[in-house]
Parts: sequence; structure tokens; C-alpha cells
Amino acid sequence: MNNSSNTTAADFDAKLGQVREFLLNLQERICTALENQEKSGGIDGGSDIKFIPDIWERPEGGGGRSCVMSGGEVIEKGGVMFSHIHISKLPPSATERHPQLAGAKAQAMGVSLVIHPKNPHVPTSHANVRLFVATPNDGSEPIWWFGGGFDLTPFYPVLSDVKHWHQVAYDLCQPFGDDIYPKFKKWCDDYFFLKHRGECRGVGGLFYDDINTNTTGWDFDQCFAFMKAVGQGYLDGIVPIFENNKYKPYTQSEREFQLYRRGRYVEYNLVYDRGTIFGLQSNGRTESILVSMPPLASWSYRYEPAVGTPEFELTDFYLKPKDWLAL
Amino acid sequence: MNNSSNTTAADFDAKLGQVREFLLNLQERICTALENQEKSGGIDGGSDIKFIPDIWERPEGGGGRSCVMSGGEVIEKGGVMFSHIHISKLPPSATERHPQLAGAKAQAMGVSLVIHPKNPHVPTSHANVRLFVATPNDGSEPIWWFGGGFDLTPFYPVLSDVKHWHQVAYDLCQPFGDDIYPKFKKWCDDYFFLKHRGECRGVGGLFYDDINTNTTGWDFDQCFAFMKAVGQGYLDGIVPIFENNKYKPYTQSEREFQLYRRGRYVEYNLVYDRGTIFGLQSNGRTESILVSMPPLASWSYRYEPAVGTPEFELTDFYLKPKDWLAL
Repeated sequence: MNNSSNTTAADFDAKLGQVREFLLNLQERICTALENQEKSGGIDGGSDIKFIPDIWERPEGGGGRSCVMSGGEVIEKGGVMFSHIHISKLPPSATERHPQLAGAKAQAMGVSLVIHPKNPHVPTSHANVRLFVATPNDGSEPIWWFGGGFDLTPFYPVLSDVKHWHQVAYDLCQPFGDDIYPKFKKWCDDYFFLKHRGECRGVGGLFYDDINTNTTGWDFDQCFAFMKAVGQGYLDGIVPIFENNKYKPYTQSEREFQLYRRGRYVEYNLVYDRGTIFGLQSNGRTESILVSMPPLASWSYRYEPAVGTPEFELTDFYLKPKDWLAL
Repeated sequence: MNNSSNTTAADFDAKLGQVREFLLNLQERICTALENQEKSGGIDGGSDIKFIPDIWERPEGGGGRSCVMSGGEVIEKGGVMFSHIHISKLPPSATERHPQLAGAKAQAMGVSLVIHPKNPHVPTSHANVRLFVATPNDGSEPIWWFGGGFDLTPFYPVLSDVKHWHQVAYDLCQPFGDDIYPKFKKWCDDYFFLKHRGECRGVGGLFYDDINTNTTGWDFDQCFAFMKAVGQGYLDGIVPIFENNKYKPYTQSEREFQLYRRGRYVEYNLVYDRGTIFGLQSNGRTESILVSMPPLASWSYRYEPAVGTPEFELTDFYLKPKDWLAL
């Protein structure tokens, strides 16, 4: 397998440097956009609370920059994490599909974020873009793949917002082929599904993994361009949704419903999310992995919203996969 | 393997009936004892809130009786669940150690409980007693094993309470042999451990599984007697701990610490607890499985209590395995 023909090792390293630069810059841009949402305020007021960067190193190699804000009036808790991890020797469990990579050096870099707004009318959002590169010990060219996506978890969804979110996803995918949005949209619906609840985590978005020349025909630069488009797409998607909803008043009962639904977010992340489970099992940085946890969540035995209420509509209509753009 | 020599099939069925009766009665006794704690009140007052029984059937066979109380002034949320499940055909995954049981009929019965008090000075507690029986298709005698235990998760531990809890455990084990308490106490410490946090879930108690004649030398009646002792032990252990702590005043900051620590309880149950994970994966009754979730829990990035505070002492001293009875 040769994903990077026509490039020398130095060229390829330069490309990796560009991805790293892009990711660090993306983290900054997202933090700034969200801090602006906090500053311009919402129904609960606003604040100058900012993301606090926390730089960490990993004893095994590499490290990251976790930017976390909490206690905001618009954003109750949010984490925007950059990491760039070096692996000196891939474990056999990681190389089942690529036996030539057993024992290879590898690196993974990415930006991952989860934002928990305070106002239940503003959805929780998640995005991730990542690149994995392994360098075989036999001197053959590096093997790489991209992954990522973004998804939205509303409590009191607004159909036009959901359509906007998916329109952004559709538009960014379109230059890469007509089949991309439907494929990655379905992948997202399938991935963010709570089997034990029989419902989707939210209204979806995009999810993709193992993207490289073999799987898509795209060269490294095209895959990187897609990563950039997804990163920008998160911002294009989420900012208007904050603007549209953050000034809405809410009741104590709507707040309680938000805390209850955040319980499902916890269930998803701890029971199903591969990144979370892999991270916890592989001695990852627990605080960075679990920064995705909500600031406050509740559980209630056999809570069932009354038919016809917005709370009922959430699970009955919104948390089932749909062709949003056709609605 | 023959765990029930000298008993006829009818004798054995009668024994299973006795276990079922004991379990239903244990559920009642525990509910009554805890309702009495609620009624006699604490620092937040008391109430007449009772456990509400919820009888359910499982389409595949069997069912249960889940008793749940919530919104109490002493007990914020609690579930005491009886279940008796029939399995028509054991899946191969369940019979790795007993190949002769592939496709066998089986049943599992037990009582499981988790109690989340409101006052942070009262520990969260958990107990479980269960019996599993499989009937080989070849007409040979049933194979059975018992499991269970109880463990305590304090937020602001009191050493004398912890010693009392373990003294009850020690005393109930003693008639069954000198090695029982140390063995099942260590099993509990090992089992309720959060690897990704490097800490125990609580101060432990007892945990045991796969108890039968082959593993302990005890016959069915002796194993059943141990089940009874553990069930009673939970009550003997927890009631004085409620009495000693429920009238203590607490601050908002102590309440917040309780919610934060409950987050660890969620992490344990969703990431490690075999019963929870098996239940969710095997299409169990989600609401009964997740009744163990706290009513409210919080997460905070990189929270670290100051050295010397009770919050620091919890993780620094109490959440590390100890020979409590020697202290």
C-alpha cells in the first residue's frame, strides 16, 4: 500500500507539519468563536470567561493542548482539545488490518471538542478531525488515514437549525463527490446510536474514518482539504445555532430535561464511544478524555414525557435518522 | 460436575423455590428498613416516600420486581431490584468454561440494590446476591453457582463506620471459614477499582462469584446460607451508618463534592461493571439496569482537592485498599 507516491519523506514530513499547523489554528479559531458567543451573552447574561489552555506531555511521547472553559453563562462547560501523540511501536491489536505495521512507529494528531451550553435551547455539539500516520519498519512509505466529523445533540430541536446543520455538511461534502454526504451522514447516524435506548444520540451530521487513497481515491492533499472543510463546517454550522437559540428563555423543567438528556450523552460516551473507551483502556490522559462529560447530568427511573410535548417529540421524531434536507 | 448429589430434581426445584422466596422477602425487608430511614428523617427532614414496586416481564422468559424510590429527604434515589430470568438456550459465549452447557436451559435470580442518599455524609451503598442455575440437555444434574457481595462508597468517610461495615462482613464470613473474609474482601477491592482513575470506587466490603461445591466445598444449602448472611449483612451494615450520619449538617460545597464523586460512580458502572455492561449488551431491561445511576452527578475538569482537606483524604487514604479491621 502506497498512499504517498511522488512524495519524498521530507515532502511528507512537511505535509504533516502543515496538518499540525492547521489543527492548532483550528483550535484557536473555534475557541475564539465560542468565547465570542460567551461574551455576547444569552438569556442568562454573558461573561468574559475564556478557554484556559492546559499544555501536557505524554511520557510515551507527544502531548497536547487542552482548552477548557467552565462556568460560563452561555457555555456551561466546553473543551477544545488538540493532541499530537507519538507511538514508538504499534501494538499488534492496532495492526490487524495492516500486518506490515506491527511494531511500526506511528503518530496521531487531531482536534476534538465537546460543548455543553447552559441554555437547554442550545444543542450540545461535538466535532473531531484527526490524522493517523504509521511508518513501516521495512522502509516502505508511510501509511496514513484521516477521520472525523461533527454531530449535534439538541434538547429542544428547531427543524430549521437541524436543516442548516445538515446543509453545511452537505455543502462541504459536495466538492468531494455526490456520494460523500449521504455516506458520511449515514455513518454518523449509525455510529452515534444508543442500542440500549433504541435512539440516536442526536440529529447527526458527518462521521468518517479510515479515509485515504485506497478507500476514497483521494490523495493526501485532498484528504487534508476535506479535514479543513469539516473543521470550518463545524464553525459554520454551530455559530448560527448559538445565535438563534441562546437568547430564548427557558423554564426549570426544561433545564431538568436537559440534565436528564445529558445522562444519555454520558451513557453514549462511556458505553459506546470508541475514542473514550480506547483512551481509558490504553492509559490515556483521563482528564482530557473525560472533558466530554457534561458539567451536570441526571438520571430518573422510567421517565417518559407525555405524548405531544416537545420532550416527547425529541425522541419520537428527532432522534431517528432522517433525510433532513428533504424535509 | 455434580453440585447436587443426593438430591432429586424435585428436591432441587424446592430449594430453588426457597431461594426465590428468600430473595423476595429480602427485597421487602431492605425496602422497609430504608423506608424507615426516610420516615425517621435526617438533616433535610424526612418523608413518607416509599419504594414503588414495578413488576415487569421479559419477553424471553421470567421477569422481576423493581422497587424504586426517588425524591426522598434522606434517600435521594434508591432501587432494590428482584429479578428471576429464564434463559431457554445458553449462548456459546456464556458456556466457555462449561462446554456441556451449550444450548442448556438456565435461570438466574437475585436481588440487587444501589442507594444514593441525599446527605453527602451518608455513603452510597450497593449490594447484590444472585444464583445462577443451568440444566444440561444431556439429563445430567443442574450446575449452579452463587455470587454477590456488598460495598460502600462514602464521600466523607468516618473511620469507625468503615470499620463497622467491615466488621459485619468479617463476622458473617467467619462461620464459613477463616479464609473467606480476606478472600472476598480482596476480591471486592480488586473488582471495584477504577483503573483510569487509579482509585477504588469506595471502601469495599465483600465480592464473590462462581461459588459452588467445586470452588468452595460448600453444598447448595451452605452456599444458600452464605447468601442469606450477606443479605442480612447489608442491613446490619448500612442501618447504623444511616443513623450515625443522616442528621449531620452539610454545606453546599460538600453537596457539590458528592455530585462530583457520583460522577466516578457513573464511570465505574458504565465502564467496568460487568453486570451493567452485560445487561446493556444483552438487551436487558435498560431502566432496571441503569436504576443504579445517581439522580444527579457532575464532572469538573482537573478538579483536585487541596492537601489536608477531607476531600483530599477521601482519595488519599480511604480509596486505597486497607486492612480496615487492623486500624
